[in-house]
Amino acid sequence: MYETLLTDTDTRGVATVTLNRPDKRNAMSGEMIAELTDCAAALASDDTVRAVVLRGAGALFCAGGDLNWMRAQIDADGETRGREAGKLAAMLGAWNTLPKAVIGRIEGAAFGGGVGLACVCDVALAAPDTKFGLTETKLGLIPATIGPYVVARMGEGNARRVFMSSRVFGADEAQALGIIARVSDDLDAAVEAEITPYLACAPGAVAEAKALALHLGGAPGQAEVEHSIKALVTRWDSAESAEGIAAFFDKRKAAWVR
Amino acid sequence: MYETLLTDTDTRGVATVTLNRPDKRNAMSGEMIAELTDCAAALASDDTVRAVVLRGAGALFCAGGDLNWMRAQIDADGETRGREAGKLAAMLGAWNTLPKAVIGRIEGAAFGGGVGLACVCDVALAAPDTKFGLTETKLGLIPATIGPYVVARMGEGNARRVFMSSRVFGADEAQALGIIARVSDDLDAAVEAEITPYLACAPGAVAEAKALALHLGGAPGQAEVEHSIKALVTRWDSAESAEGIAAFFDKRKAAWVR
Amino acid sequence: MYETLLTDTDTRGVATVTLNRPDKRNAMSGEMIAELTDCAAALASDDTVRAVVLRGAGALFCAGGDLNWMRAQIDADGETRGREAGKLAAMLGAWNTLPKAVIGRIEGAAFGGGVGLACVCDVALAAPDTKFGLTETKLGLIPATIGPYVVARMGEGNARRVFMSSRVFGADEAQALGIIARVSDDLDAAVEAEITPYLACAPGAVAEAKALALHLGGAPGQAEVEHSIKALVTRWDSAESAEGIAAFFDKRKAAWVR
Repeated sequence: MYETLLTDTDTRGVATVTLNRPDKRNAMSGEMIAELTDCAAALASDDTVRAVVLRGAGALFCAGGDLNWMRAQIDADGETRGREAGKLAAMLGAWNTLPKAVIGRIEGAAFGGGVGLACVCDVALAAPDTKFGLTETKLGLIPATIGPYVVARMGEGNARRVFMSSRVFGADEAQALGIIARVSDDLDAAVEAEITPYLACAPGAVAEAKALALHLGGAPGQAEVEHSIKALVTRWDSAESAEGIAAFFDKRKAAWVR
Repeated sequence: MYETLLTDTDTRGVATVTLNRPDKRNAMSGEMIAELTDCAAALASDDTVRAVVLRGAGALFCAGGDLNWMRAQIDADGETRGREAGKLAAMLGAWNTLPKAVIGRIEGAAFGGGVGLACVCDVALAAPDTKFGLTETKLGLIPATIGPYVVARMGEGNARRVFMSSRVFGADEAQALGIIARVSDDLDAAVEAEITPYLACAPGAVAEAKALALHLGGAPGQAEVEHSIKALVTRWDSAESAEGIAAFFDKRKAAWVR
Repeated sequence: MYETLLTDTDTRGVATVTLNRPDKRNAMSGEMIAELTDCAAALASDDTVRAVVLRGAGALFCAGGDLNWMRAQIDADGETRGREAGKLAAMLGAWNTLPKAVIGRIEGAAFGGGVGLACVCDVALAAPDTKFGLTETKLGLIPATIGPYVVARMGEGNARRVFMSSRVFGADEAQALGIIARVSDDLDAAVEAEITPYLACAPGAVAEAKALALHLGGAPGQAEVEHSIKALVTRWDSAESAEGIAAFFDKRKAAWVR
C-alpha cells in the first residue's frame, strides 16, 4: 500500500503505523507526509480500528524533516513553498484530530517534525535513552508548522527555550515538558498497558471526548496553522536558511557559529 | 440547613463544607448540586468567612455523579437534560469564582464530578492513596460540564488521555497533572498549613487576586460552558450512553468491551 | 550610563545586565523601571548581542517593587498611578519580547516584580536556596502588571494559589510551577551551559522562533496588559492598600491579620 509506512491492525482493532525509512532515520519526505495524511483518513473512517500506535522502524522514531526535502523548499518558488508547508500542516492536523486513541511509541530519537508527531498523539511513551530536540535554528530555520502542537504540550515559556536554543534533551526532560506521558525501559509493555483501557471504552464517546478536549484546550485553529505556514515560507526565503542548509551539506560550521 | 452537606465555620473564619452522602460515596445527586450552588452563594456573601475547606464525609471525597441522577437524564427529554446539565455547570462556575480561598481536602476517591470539584478549588491537597479518574467513556458518556475546569488544570494534551481512556490514576499522577498541589499523609496538618497564609492577607485583595488570575488565565467563559452543556445533552441522547448505563445496572460488560 | 544597572558585553556577544541597588535588595524603583526599559531597547537593536543574562548584585536577584515607590503611588492621583503602572507594564513587555535569548540568573530572593522579571526571561535558572513569592495580598495589593507573565508560566490554577496566599516558596517549587527551568548549586556553570547552544544558532532564526512561540502561546496582549494596569490602579486606591503599606512602615500587623 504505502512506500514509506508499514501498517497492521490486530484482532482487537489496534492498528500499528510504522514510519519505514530506517536508512534515512525515518525522516519525513514529501512522500511520507502524503502517505501519513492518507493513512490518517483511512484510520479515521475504519470502524474496526479502536486505537493506533505510531512508531518508527529500526528502534528510532523520526529524525525530523528530510533534509533533501527541506533543501528543495529553499530552492523552490514561494507558491511551491506554501503548498509544501500546507501539506505538512494538513498532515499534522489530520493526526491531531484523528477520532481514535493515538499512542506514540518513541525510541531512539525524535527531532523536529518527529517531536511534532509525538505532540499530535493523545499519549506518547518513550524509552529512557531517547533524544529529543527542535534543532531548526541551527540550520537558520524555525519549528513553524509543528509549533502549534508543541506549544500545546509544553506551554509558551518552555517553547521559547526549546524553539530558540536548538538544545537536545532526554526523555525525562521531555516528560517534564509535557511531550511524553511516561518513560519506560519496557516500551512494549508500556504501550500495551496504555492501550488496554481504551478497549473498554465506548468508541463514540472516546471520539467525542477527544473532540471536547481539543475544543476546550484551544487546539490549534486555522489562524495558528496559517500563521505558522506563513512564518515557515518566509523563513525558507531567508539568507540564514540558505547558509544553514549549505553549511550542513558542506559539513562546515555556519557563519554565525561562535 | 442542608440535606446533603455539613457546614461549619470556626472563629478564624475558616468554613468547612462536607459532602455528606457517605453511603453513596458522596455522589452528586440533583439535590447536592442545588445545595452546593446555594452554599457557594452563602459563603461568597458572608464577610466573616476568609477561607473554605471542601471535603467529603467518611474518608472519601466524591465518587462523581450519582448514577440514578445520570440514568434519569438519559430517560429525560431534551429540555430537562439541558436544564439539569446547566444546573451542574452553574454550580461548578459558582465554586470556581467564589471570592475566597477554597481548599480541597481530597482523600479516598475523586471520580468524574469529584475531579471537577477538586479542579474548581484554588488548591487541592490529597492523601497518598487517593484514586482519581474520569471514567465517563466506559459508560458511553463524556466528561463534559466538568471538562473546562479539568482542562484548565491539566492542559489539552493530558486532558485528551484522561478524558478518552477512563484510566484510573493515583495521587502522585494527579499532582503531576496539576489537579493536586500537594500530596500528604497528614492531610489535617497539610490543610492547616495551607490555610494559615490566607489569614494574614487582605480579604479584598485575595478576592481581586483570584478574579485577576481567573481573567488572565482564560477561565472558562460562557461559550465553553455552553459548548460543554450541549455536548453532554447530545451524549445523553446516544445509544452508547443508554447501553453503558444499562450494562452498569445489569452488572454486565457493555457491548463495546474487548 | 545607568544609575541602577550595570551592563557588560563579552566578546561572544553575551551581555550581562545586573540590577544594582544591593542596599535596597535590588528593589525596582521608578528609575530602575525606566532604565530597564531603555536597556531592553538598546539590547534589542545591538546586532553584536546574541544573548542576555539578567541578574542582581550582591547574590540576590530582586526583592520586588520598591516600597517607597509603591507608597508614592498610593498617595498619588489616578492619572499618575495609571502612568506609573503603565511604565512598569511597558518595561515587562519590552523584556518579554526582546528578540534575543534572555537568561535569568536567580539567586537569594525573587519577590513580586522580581518574579515578574524571572517570568519574562526565556529561561530562568535558580540557586537551590532562593526564595520566591508574590506577597502583594499581605500588603492589601495584587500582583497585577506582572500577572500576565506569571500566569503564562504557571497556569491559572497555580496562579490562583500563588497570587491569593502570598505564600513564600523555594526553588524546587518554583521549578514545579514553571518559573524556573533548572535549579543548580553551580549557577555560573549552569548559566554558561545554557548560553552555549544559542551561540551556534542563527540570530535571525532565534528571534523569529521567539516571536513564533510568543504568538502561538498567546503571550499577553494589549487587552491583558490594560486589564492588569486598571486592576492595579484601582487597588492602589483601596483602603486595604493604604492600611497594608501603613502597617508595613509602622512595623505593626495589618488590621486583617488573624
